Amino acid sequence: MKDEPADKPGLLFKERVLEILLTIYSGENEGKEIYIQYIANKINSPHSYVWLVIKKLEDVGLVESVQSGRVRIIHLTDKGYEVCSHIKKIIELLDRG
Amino acid sequence: MKDEPADKPGLLFKERVLEILLTIYSGENEGKEIYIQYIANKINSPHSYVWLVIKKLEDVGLVESVQSGRVRIIHLTDKGYEVCSHIKKIIELLDRG
Repeated sequence: MKDEPADKPGLLFKERVLEILLTIYSGENEGKEIYIQYIANKINSPHSYVWLVIKKLEDVGLVESVQSGRVRIIHLTDKGYEVCSHIKKIIELLDRG
Repeated sequence: MKDEPADKPGLLFKERVLEILLTIYSGENEGKEIYIQYIANKINSPHSYVWLVIKKLEDVGLVESVQSGRVRIIHLTDKGYEVCSHIKKIIELLDRG
């Protein structure tokens, strides 16, 4: 199965983790409050899986989560934001014919 | 199994493809001629697997390969070099405590 153009990032990145990071990135750029169920709905993945990935992203300092009432609000750290901007540049380069 | 620091890039990237790209990147920076068996030896992977990944990297324009006698010499394209520099920055950020 030849890679379709849309799969290009999938050659380099773990796509689910990429989707989770970029969902937080674009959501925060739109001024939204991001919580785990929002991400799970957006990428059509179970809450439990998203929670696991968020934990790992938190362990490496790319995101942080803050309890707000019954939900945990997810934020990109400065480092996370910087990593996402490099990822976006890589994706732009890959998409450039 | 908690991710060891060394696995951090593995959270985001497909590690084998990453290793292949960065082997070409550092090899060319050292002025070496890079061919498939060199990469296969460096990352301890079968020639056939490396060849498959090189084909995919060539399809998306990150590397190009030139026949030179009995072997094919692999080069990063400008786009490939730019992608690798973003990857290196992401890895630096991940390694920063």
